[in-house]
Amino acid sequence: MNSMNRQVRLAAHPSGLPKRSDWELTEEPIPTPEAGQLLAEISHISLDPAMRGWMNPGASYIDPVEIGTVMRAATIGSVIASEHPKFAPGDQVYGNFGVQEYAVSDGHGVLKIDPSLAPAPTYLGTLGMTGLTAYFGVLDVAKVKEGDTVVISGAAGAVGSVAGQIAKIKGARAVGIAGGATKCQWLVDELGFDAAIDYKAQDVRRALRDAAPDGVDVYFDNVGGDILDAVLTRLARGARIVICGAVSQYNATDGVKGPSNYLALLVARASMTGMVVFDYAPRYRQAAAELAAWLAEGRLVSREDVVDGGVEAFHDVLLKLFAGENIGKLVLRVGSD
Amino acid sequence: MNSMNRQVRLAAHPSGLPKRSDWELTEEPIPTPEAGQLLAEISHISLDPAMRGWMNPGASYIDPVEIGTVMRAATIGSVIASEHPKFAPGDQVYGNFGVQEYAVSDGHGVLKIDPSLAPAPTYLGTLGMTGLTAYFGVLDVAKVKEGDTVVISGAAGAVGSVAGQIAKIKGARAVGIAGGATKCQWLVDELGFDAAIDYKAQDVRRALRDAAPDGVDVYFDNVGGDILDAVLTRLARGARIVICGAVSQYNATDGVKGPSNYLALLVARASMTGMVVFDYAPRYRQAAAELAAWLAEGRLVSREDVVDGGVEAFHDVLLKLFAGENIGKLVLRVGSD
Repeated sequence: MNSMNRQVRLAAHPSGLPKRSDWELTEEPIPTPEAGQLLAEISHISLDPAMRGWMNPGASYIDPVEIGTVMRAATIGSVIASEHPKFAPGDQVYGNFGVQEYAVSDGHGVLKIDPSLAPAPTYLGTLGMTGLTAYFGVLDVAKVKEGDTVVISGAAGAVGSVAGQIAKIKGARAVGIAGGATKCQWLVDELGFDAAIDYKAQDVRRALRDAAPDGVDVYFDNVGGDILDAVLTRLARGARIVICGAVSQYNATDGVKGPSNYLALLVARASMTGMVVFDYAPRYRQAAAELAAWLAEGRLVSREDVVDGGVEAFHDVLLKLFAGENIGKLVLRVGSD
Repeated sequence: MNSMNRQVRLAAHPSGLPKRSDWELTEEPIPTPEAGQLLAEISHISLDPAMRGWMNPGASYIDPVEIGTVMRAATIGSVIASEHPKFAPGDQVYGNFGVQEYAVSDGHGVLKIDPSLAPAPTYLGTLGMTGLTAYFGVLDVAKVKEGDTVVISGAAGAVGSVAGQIAKIKGARAVGIAGGATKCQWLVDELGFDAAIDYKAQDVRRALRDAAPDGVDVYFDNVGGDILDAVLTRLARGARIVICGAVSQYNATDGVKGPSNYLALLVARASMTGMVVFDYAPRYRQAAAELAAWLAEGRLVSREDVVDGGVEAFHDVLLKLFAGENIGKLVLRVGSD
């Protein structure tokens, strides 16, 4: 065991795409757990589009990351020392430990995971926040039902890939929008989407005429921008749009592009509703159990894109996320074991 | 009685604000009702922002007005001849007779009105489509309840003025946004709004901090554009936005301005829902009766801005509407009696 803890701290609020200089790599001695605390060695760090928002100053659905503090991140780790009654060395845990190698915690928000049920990275994706976001977005916000045509943007990402599969499990038609033939093929061939639209090669609006001939009943939006505007032109009467994210807009330096076609909501008597998964915390356990059961039954395919490199690779891996280079959940592995 | 029927027909789909040349004034003999028809002499023509949308080609929530046909409009008239079993000469009626002086009708969508209960123009406003739009928007779409802070744009218009008063009747706090001190004073002094914001003189976003200190629970939007964006920054958790119209955008020649701040829906877990009053047709009668009762009890104030000039004034009066010069429901009077 190393004696130092390497950390990635926010050095500056980025303008546009984060730059290397927006981060500071720091080192400090590995902390010692006090009474009521555990010490975790972090093995996997979750990369999420939402991180970009956390880096901005100002109020949002969650406090911003303050300059000089360790970047917020969901992680998986092993308990290596514990003065906490509920955790023992050897426990594998999920926690918001941040972009660093070691962390002490009072156990708040720390959950034990069972690596024999699913690999550790799956607990950051399909069995973690992104899977839960898909679950509650599809079932609670959009209220997807049998026969609905459900269109998902960012469909090859961690949230979108699960959202489309849950829609299929519920008897809906799933149409994914993703960038590139590889992702689109994966959606249809491996995940069972009914159709996929490659927004880099196709006119989304036109492609939706074929893929959703009776209109879009539910649109699960992870990207915003032009794709949101294209889908707005194809809404069925009473359509429900879930605003889960807007990755195309997070790094915009000239302001967010609002949906010019929003008056389609009026024509279609449609709704657009924002969601934040945290609101469903009391139901995480039940939802994760259902997701785990679908995984075990083979009805749900989970894919993680695990990148090696340790915390010093965090910046590069984050850019990979914003470039849309990952398929499935993007995870940074820390340590060599 | 004249022997000719003067009519305003759509001559061209306008680009931007309608021009005089987009209309054609025609004259044809007054038609004779056949079996099952009535002939109405039109006394009042409703002016509505929605008319601008009807003048565009292409599908929307209602068929466009075809080039060469009489402009669609809600009207009040008197039956002057009838071969229809349910209507007799002397009946005062509401009907979508269009911008002309006389019309025959098979009675479809024609309703008798009682001028002893309310003046004829009120049946185009508070007891007509605009009042019903306010009623269903506030009660059914926004589900306004006691204690809500309800913000209304276009608040001095036909829909907005009624929407704010219904919110008050339901025990909510009503904040109106309108252009000019006269309108704002009318909202507070005559209609009982709790506050009014003059968007021409005030920074709406800043003014909302005072007028809606705990945030906006319901936003009833008639205007879109910058005002929608300003209100989005002040949403309370779980806010409901009703998209009723977007008069600021109807004449835009460089495309509709989408709401750049729409991601506030996510932060606030808010929804934005489009409405069209036609969906509530089965409940018009019950709603109009309730509105009439509120009028009779003095709980609801109705104001109409009645302009003389006959059908040849239609173009000028329509521009008055888009310039926001009216207070309350804008109505064009036809004929001299």
